[in-house]
Amino acid sequence: MNAQIPHSAQASAQANAALVEGVLQGQRRALAKSITLVESSREDHRQQAQALLTALLPHAGGSLRLGISGVPGVGKSTFIEALGLYLIEQHQKRVAVLAVDPSSSVSGGSILGDKTRMELLSQQTAAFIRPSPSAGSLGGVAEKTRETMLLCEAAGFDVLIIETVGVGQSETAVASMTDMFCLLQLPNAGDDLQGIKKGIMELADMVVVNKADTDKVATARACAQIKTALHMLRPASPNWTVPVLKLSALKKDGIDQFWQNVQSFYDTMHARGELQERRHRQARSWMWELVDSGLRQRFRAHPRVQALLTRSEHDVTAGLLPPALAARQLLDALDSPPTG
Amino acid sequence: MNAQIPHSAQASAQANAALVEGVLQGQRRALAKSITLVESSREDHRQQAQALLTALLPHAGGSLRLGISGVPGVGKSTFIEALGLYLIEQHQKRVAVLAVDPSSSVSGGSILGDKTRMELLSQQTAAFIRPSPSAGSLGGVAEKTRETMLLCEAAGFDVLIIETVGVGQSETAVASMTDMFCLLQLPNAGDDLQGIKKGIMELADMVVVNKADTDKVATARACAQIKTALHMLRPASPNWTVPVLKLSALKKDGIDQFWQNVQSFYDTMHARGELQERRHRQARSWMWELVDSGLRQRFRAHPRVQALLTRSEHDVTAGLLPPALAARQLLDALDSPPTG
Repeated sequence: MNAQIPHSAQASAQANAALVEGVLQGQRRALAKSITLVESSREDHRQQAQALLTALLPHAGGSLRLGISGVPGVGKSTFIEALGLYLIEQHQKRVAVLAVDPSSSVSGGSILGDKTRMELLSQQTAAFIRPSPSAGSLGGVAEKTRETMLLCEAAGFDVLIIETVGVGQSETAVASMTDMFCLLQLPNAGDDLQGIKKGIMELADMVVVNKADTDKVATARACAQIKTALHMLRPASPNWTVPVLKLSALKKDGIDQFWQNVQSFYDTMHARGELQERRHRQARSWMWELVDSGLRQRFRAHPRVQALLTRSEHDVTAGLLPPALAARQLLDALDSPPTG
Repeated sequence: MNAQIPHSAQASAQANAALVEGVLQGQRRALAKSITLVESSREDHRQQAQALLTALLPHAGGSLRLGISGVPGVGKSTFIEALGLYLIEQHQKRVAVLAVDPSSSVSGGSILGDKTRMELLSQQTAAFIRPSPSAGSLGGVAEKTRETMLLCEAAGFDVLIIETVGVGQSETAVASMTDMFCLLQLPNAGDDLQGIKKGIMELADMVVVNKADTDKVATARACAQIKTALHMLRPASPNWTVPVLKLSALKKDGIDQFWQNVQSFYDTMHARGELQERRHRQARSWMWELVDSGLRQRFRAHPRVQALLTRSEHDVTAGLLPPALAARQLLDALDSPPTG
């Protein structure tokens, strides 16, 4: 293993020994400092962070990774707070809450000037709440969240809740870094007001109709409609039928049933080996995503490619140049000597 | 434009002048020969094909590009034959039928030893039926089908029907090369027997319940269920509500209504500029897909990457190496001198 780490990173790893120790002991300051390193874009910080992650990786993987998504107003913060408190109080779990987009409610508190969000949960010593890293593209944000998850696991948190408000491709990103992806819905699920973006329903391992106390008739109808919709879609796993639950996060009604379903999911998926397989696939995809993105970056930065690219894209769009020929010309440019 | 074509290809283009002329005149032999060139994997043929496509590209784009998908047994061949004959007889259209996978019914005739499929349509001089190119990955097959579409357009076909049996990612590929993607369903749409793969329902611009004559009650129920499912999914276009039609291809009942909906889709999408935008986006994506695939190929072929890759993938999967560090090491290997 060590032979694969660059020397500078190895040196940082030694300097970071105290940080590693602190995270493993579950110290909040060491964890927060490590996350700051991971989120930094400074090159020396990146190297330090990678050394830190390499040292902590053998201690990660022990958490239950739960993705939570839903449109704004569905009550994600209230739900996550109720779930977190339930897990701490009823099951003596340690719970970390992370977010994948800057507009999520975890960071949204400051945006909305609403300091009371998850106030009770954030006061718990067994809870750790971290807003979304605010810098960069979704890819960059997702990357940092993935690494922060590993740090939280090494710090001994039992349950990681990864929240996303559902902007752009963020649900797909969250589903690709969690064991179980849960979609929160409102009782008016069938209405046009509640648009579910393309492909999101099909990512769900569980669907929850929140605010079930507000309208029982609408909730029952929403559950039936969602079940019909799910019935039309081939399930993500052959071993798991996606449950549709009704719940009131505000009244803390249905949280225990939610948790029973999470445990049932884990038992089933673990017994079938699907959980490990899902995590392995996620790790490999993550590596390849970064490789592809790195290759694209190098490609776009190449002087001869840059010289061609604008015209190629224009001509392809205008129907003047066949896409295959354009691609070949661009790839050929990559091989030409820079002075060619 | 010509400056961008390699000299050898330019020479081929001149030699191909007769072929270009033949295709533009709609000659079947010239079209068939051009498709054979496009499907060939020989390097000189590839160059000739690209020159041919470049010459014909300005004459392409005039066809209506219709994607048709559905599980085996849904009656795609019967439907496409009925539609093709209707368009030729009632609307004096010229119709080309292509397929994207080797197992599709267009080529399936020979696999199943059933020579009678689309027999009536194939006898029409206004029809051109081409089985799926059989060689290579889905990417390769899709690539060749896309290029064959351009040839058929240059040859003056009014309607291109691209069929897929729905194996793997082929529906996504077909949706990404057509103007309108139609999904055929059976009256037992809600049953578990009729699995719709992840994300397919959301690609549909129109859903057709075929064999509606066999069970009116089941058909009505299927239509309602599909409408509910579609209602749960945000539509692909804000300007278009996906229609759900019942139809009997065998009894030729509902074909005219299908065609009215296709025309209505075109009118709407064209008026809003969405049709052109969709085609532009498809051409750019196609180019980038080929660039990415080329970059991946070069990456995997690099000796130092090859030396690292197996261990990197293993260590990432086993949770021993952070994916980001693995990706960085692999990308660094690409930059190292070959003897490093």
